Amino acid sequence: MEIGFIGTGVMGAAIVQHMLKAGKTVNVYNRTKSKTTPLVEAGAHWQESPQAVAEKSQIVFSMVGYPQDVEEIYFGKQGIFKADLTKKIVVDLTTSTPTLATKIYEAAKNKGGNSLDAPVSGGDIGAKNGTLTVMVGGEKAIFQEVMPVFNFFSSKVNLQGTAGAGQHTKMANQIMIAGTMTGMTEMLVYAKAAKLDIPTVLDTLGGGGAANWSLANYAPRILKNEYSPGFFVKHFIKDLGIALAEAEKLAISLPATELAKKLYDNLAEKGYENAGTQALIKLWWEDE
Amino acid sequence: MEIGFIGTGVMGAAIVQHMLKAGKTVNVYNRTKSKTTPLVEAGAHWQESPQAVAEKSQIVFSMVGYPQDVEEIYFGKQGIFKADLTKKIVVDLTTSTPTLATKIYEAAKNKGGNSLDAPVSGGDIGAKNGTLTVMVGGEKAIFQEVMPVFNFFSSKVNLQGTAGAGQHTKMANQIMIAGTMTGMTEMLVYAKAAKLDIPTVLDTLGGGGAANWSLANYAPRILKNEYSPGFFVKHFIKDLGIALAEAEKLAISLPATELAKKLYDNLAEKGYENAGTQALIKLWWEDE
Repeated sequence: MEIGFIGTGVMGAAIVQHMLKAGKTVNVYNRTKSKTTPLVEAGAHWQESPQAVAEKSQIVFSMVGYPQDVEEIYFGKQGIFKADLTKKIVVDLTTSTPTLATKIYEAAKNKGGNSLDAPVSGGDIGAKNGTLTVMVGGEKAIFQEVMPVFNFFSSKVNLQGTAGAGQHTKMANQIMIAGTMTGMTEMLVYAKAAKLDIPTVLDTLGGGGAANWSLANYAPRILKNEYSPGFFVKHFIKDLGIALAEAEKLAISLPATELAKKLYDNLAEKGYENAGTQALIKLWWEDE
Repeated sequence: MEIGFIGTGVMGAAIVQHMLKAGKTVNVYNRTKSKTTPLVEAGAHWQESPQAVAEKSQIVFSMVGYPQDVEEIYFGKQGIFKADLTKKIVVDLTTSTPTLATKIYEAAKNKGGNSLDAPVSGGDIGAKNGTLTVMVGGEKAIFQEVMPVFNFFSSKVNLQGTAGAGQHTKMANQIMIAGTMTGMTEMLVYAKAAKLDIPTVLDTLGGGGAANWSLANYAPRILKNEYSPGFFVKHFIKDLGIALAEAEKLAISLPATELAKKLYDNLAEKGYENAGTQALIKLWWEDE
């Protein structure tokens, strides 16, 4: 069985390395060809288009930036759906829209194949360590068929429901993180203004009802002035935009998520779109 | 050495029980006398006023509802400061204002005594199990003198800084929790509207970057329709009100905390002021 992989950015490249280490044959394509060089050196096979990857492979993964990129590699001129997909499975790891996930699923079925939407969390470190969480939408039998491959790069893989449910779960994840990031940021703003000793505050809060992953992982980076991306501001803005658009379709109001989106939009306008999400505090601390 | 304890509500009573179990003599007063009956039966000594408690005791704890209650028991007609406080220590465990904490500290010093502000987190369960977190403001020598008594009912006790710093740290704690509660609530609202299987969503989110204490502890209660208070909506509103008033004094803007306060105000207006803070979801789910 050959695996295809389209989109070898930081996350994708790390995932392909795990597949290669597991002894798999992996066909790769990336818009910027040079990014695949280390993978080809490690044994991956370069292909000239998403279509060519899909022709060669039985399971085709994709991991690109934005929903429009997903559209292009699936439905574009030399896209995946130009290939014969009979009995093949396509798996989109991109965080994208539930609507597009459903559209891909239906197109794959129409061509005699199948699909899973499978966005991940855990960031570049999770990809490198093979400890990503994968949130999967699709059919159970297909989920089980792809599971051994997910296991090469993940520590938790859950089937969340039918096509689109993986993306919906990722949106739920990002809505939760919007809360921890805004809360943590305002907590630090307050603690500094009140002239508290912030490491002691973090020690106190970290053991009780205020404890959370962002507090444990991002607050220490902020204290060291580290704003490089684990997770890009611009991607978080994309995700929250999708979440709010879906919320509107579902006729629910999410005011805290809306506020978080606005704050991150402000942050991007200030030039921090390529910083990590912990840079939110720059809305307060920048001028000091 | 005799200990005094003023305010034997759910939290205070649990703390006094730990002191009694440790073999201490404890003098108690509570506005509603009947609430002290189980404590007196367990060996505590009833006193007729805060002043009387302070006359009898070398370390005097207080734990009441609101800053105005703290004012009354310290500065009122039969308040603590009517007693001779020479070489005595007063310790306010109430979540109250940093300004009042400083006022009490100065008054105690003027009377030859000393004080600590020492709000706690960990709720009724932490009080029962003796695993509260205590955030202390005051002088280091005084902190060390009271430490053995804190240890009867706490698993973590940190000196946060000078008088008022305990209260400021508690505000930082509540600002962080405002983020986790609004985020968790909107996450559940989205997950339900998107027809996801919520226990699977909680399992997926609980192991990654979205993980937090509220998600682990409150979300399962919501799924079981349990809205009884671990922590009262009305007390959270009090705390966020203090935090925002302090933020205004410090000339910082905390938009996510302001939004959380508004949402909880709406919740109280709907009649949920005596529910637990996890009832926030009733702003969305009540009419279903």
